[in-house]
Amino acid sequence: MWDAGGRKYLDCYNNVPHVGHCNPRVVEAICKQAATLNTHTRYLHEGILDYVERLTATCEDPLETAILTCTGSEANDIALRMAEAMTGKRGIVATDATYHGNTTLVSHLSKSNVPEVGFGLGQYLRHVEAPDSYRIADPDGQRFAAKVQEAIDDLERSGIGFAALIVCPLFLNEGFPTQAEGWLRPAAEAVRRAGGLLICDEVQSGFGRSGSHFWAHQRQGVTPDVVTMGKPMGNGHPVAGLVTTAEIMARFRKSFRYFNTFGGNPVSCAAAMAVLDELQERNLQANAARIGQLAQQRLVELAGRHPVIGDVRQSGMVFGAEFVLDRQERTPAAAYADLVVNKMRQRGIILSKLGRHKNTLKIRPPMPFGAEHLDLLMTTLDEVLTETPVIA
Amino acid sequence: MWDAGGRKYLDCYNNVPHVGHCNPRVVEAICKQAATLNTHTRYLHEGILDYVERLTATCEDPLETAILTCTGSEANDIALRMAEAMTGKRGIVATDATYHGNTTLVSHLSKSNVPEVGFGLGQYLRHVEAPDSYRIADPDGQRFAAKVQEAIDDLERSGIGFAALIVCPLFLNEGFPTQAEGWLRPAAEAVRRAGGLLICDEVQSGFGRSGSHFWAHQRQGVTPDVVTMGKPMGNGHPVAGLVTTAEIMARFRKSFRYFNTFGGNPVSCAAAMAVLDELQERNLQANAARIGQLAQQRLVELAGRHPVIGDVRQSGMVFGAEFVLDRQERTPAAAYADLVVNKMRQRGIILSKLGRHKNTLKIRPPMPFGAEHLDLLMTTLDEVLTETPVIA
Repeated sequence: MWDAGGRKYLDCYNNVPHVGHCNPRVVEAICKQAATLNTHTRYLHEGILDYVERLTATCEDPLETAILTCTGSEANDIALRMAEAMTGKRGIVATDATYHGNTTLVSHLSKSNVPEVGFGLGQYLRHVEAPDSYRIADPDGQRFAAKVQEAIDDLERSGIGFAALIVCPLFLNEGFPTQAEGWLRPAAEAVRRAGGLLICDEVQSGFGRSGSHFWAHQRQGVTPDVVTMGKPMGNGHPVAGLVTTAEIMARFRKSFRYFNTFGGNPVSCAAAMAVLDELQERNLQANAARIGQLAQQRLVELAGRHPVIGDVRQSGMVFGAEFVLDRQERTPAAAYADLVVNKMRQRGIILSKLGRHKNTLKIRPPMPFGAEHLDLLMTTLDEVLTETPVIA
Repeated sequence: MWDAGGRKYLDCYNNVPHVGHCNPRVVEAICKQAATLNTHTRYLHEGILDYVERLTATCEDPLETAILTCTGSEANDIALRMAEAMTGKRGIVATDATYHGNTTLVSHLSKSNVPEVGFGLGQYLRHVEAPDSYRIADPDGQRFAAKVQEAIDDLERSGIGFAALIVCPLFLNEGFPTQAEGWLRPAAEAVRRAGGLLICDEVQSGFGRSGSHFWAHQRQGVTPDVVTMGKPMGNGHPVAGLVTTAEIMARFRKSFRYFNTFGGNPVSCAAAMAVLDELQERNLQANAARIGQLAQQRLVELAGRHPVIGDVRQSGMVFGAEFVLDRQERTPAAAYADLVVNKMRQRGIILSKLGRHKNTLKIRPPMPFGAEHLDLLMTTLDEVLTETPVIA
């Protein structure tokens, strides 16, 4: 990336340009379709049919049908209504350090940014403690499942009832905790026992980013009832959506005649199809796995020389380090994380921080990120950590 | 437009391609920007600054600030929250034959498609009788204002309180009734007296379509607190938004940290700016006024020969005829309207029908629609009406 002054940056953060900024294949697909025909989806077009077939083929049975929208927020907004339609209940469970979007309903899922307004919908939400592999032992997800069960019980006691658990399968906003494969299974079982839906928000974690699987829920050993997706789907073109089962779709369609003017229009589908083509032909999921492993090694090396790094975590093409004032108490060094992010930017490297304690570097580059980019990133990070005294 | 089999159609209905299908200026703007840079709006870009300045310059004071989104639904979803933030109340009034979008909250505004699910938000809605200039005498909008006042009173009696009236200033879904300039003023006064907000949904009526004004609320003699917009804004590219006052924006921002990944990204702004350029340089608002007048004359001529036409109405580049079984009783001929729409399509003319009684032809072509297109449309309509016996 270059800024307005012509300065060059290495983008180690943005997941919207999933297959790379200004990816030529995607740009060409958009230009070609925009110059040919663009209508809403009340006029049938093979673009959406071909794309939905290709998209649902990446999901396991019985996830076989889709709705396309413009934003992940819209997709999550529908997913929550699907849960209400299927269960007749309204209680939603999410973690206390997540973000799922900005509609009136969905915005209530963000505990860190609880809206003061929102038509009273906060009453239907229960937040559970986010997983934190560095501070809270939960090797097999049983502890998290118990927290989910408590929230379900509370919703049922209150008379609201339980409709769904919504999570990012990699818990990316929560700080992408290290988890064994299948870690989410106990929570999913609690959800099913209670008659609720499991919604996996794969806006960040999907489209191969985890390296090991195309969808991160597959790594977690669960089959969600609804998978929502967004940001990377069209490489910046506003397209998003969800995949679900025929039964859930039928129930939702019966209860509400949903239509989205721009969702899945021919240009959106052309962009989204080009993204799938790029991922496949350039083997970008395998690249994510390889770079993730290399990043892990380099970060572990840095941790050997920089005591401020308390923990190193990676999930394919998402990786980072948690900064602490001391490794004993693991006191979060949030201000230091801010400082490092800004110093990296001054040196032309874009990354960010996040997590329960806002002290974790979040490095989430576009999928074509290569070993040479990783080398520049890690060399610069080493320099910055060396020259920056730890602050509280 | 050409279909997959190569058959040519005259599009007399779609408002998404506002400045024409595959408009070369818009396509070029999209291609150029998509190949240069596309990021979310957390990275500042002059595209959104320039566009918002240009957009707000089309609005009267104190409408001076904007949020860009991807869909009109998202814009209306925000507008309703702004009303809640400003008033501390949740009661919303809309007409009983409208549509404002598809989020959980906004979908409740559509009485014709009331969702069975929706987290109980229906309790905050009150629907008032839609204006109908053909059947209900209300020359100065006093009757409509009284209906709005009744709904406000009901909301206040119920303890919910009144937050906003949301209307399309041309009542396009309701059948675009004939109204004197300033017709909406009494309703706006009732809204302000009650301390609520007036939200004008200009998704259909804006961007010059009314012919007489760039925004249709200007024709109605009112200055809304929030103006929402969508479909035509990017000529098919998913961009939408709202314009409001600094005070409302500040109150909303204080109560909720809104962010939209794709809303107002550089490509969206390039597309939207190209639409404004096209409208201005080709004088398309004036064209809408001229074609609307011509259409009115032609439809009145047809009414002279076809008794099935009970009423002719136009608001610039939106015009149509209401079909009735008899001009005495004005019995709606909805099945006949369906028949005509389908016969027109068989002859290569795309239009639709709508309105309170679903018996009104809705003709809403792209803005460059010319006199030659109008001639083909009206000649064909004459033929279809001549050959099609009236059915109930």
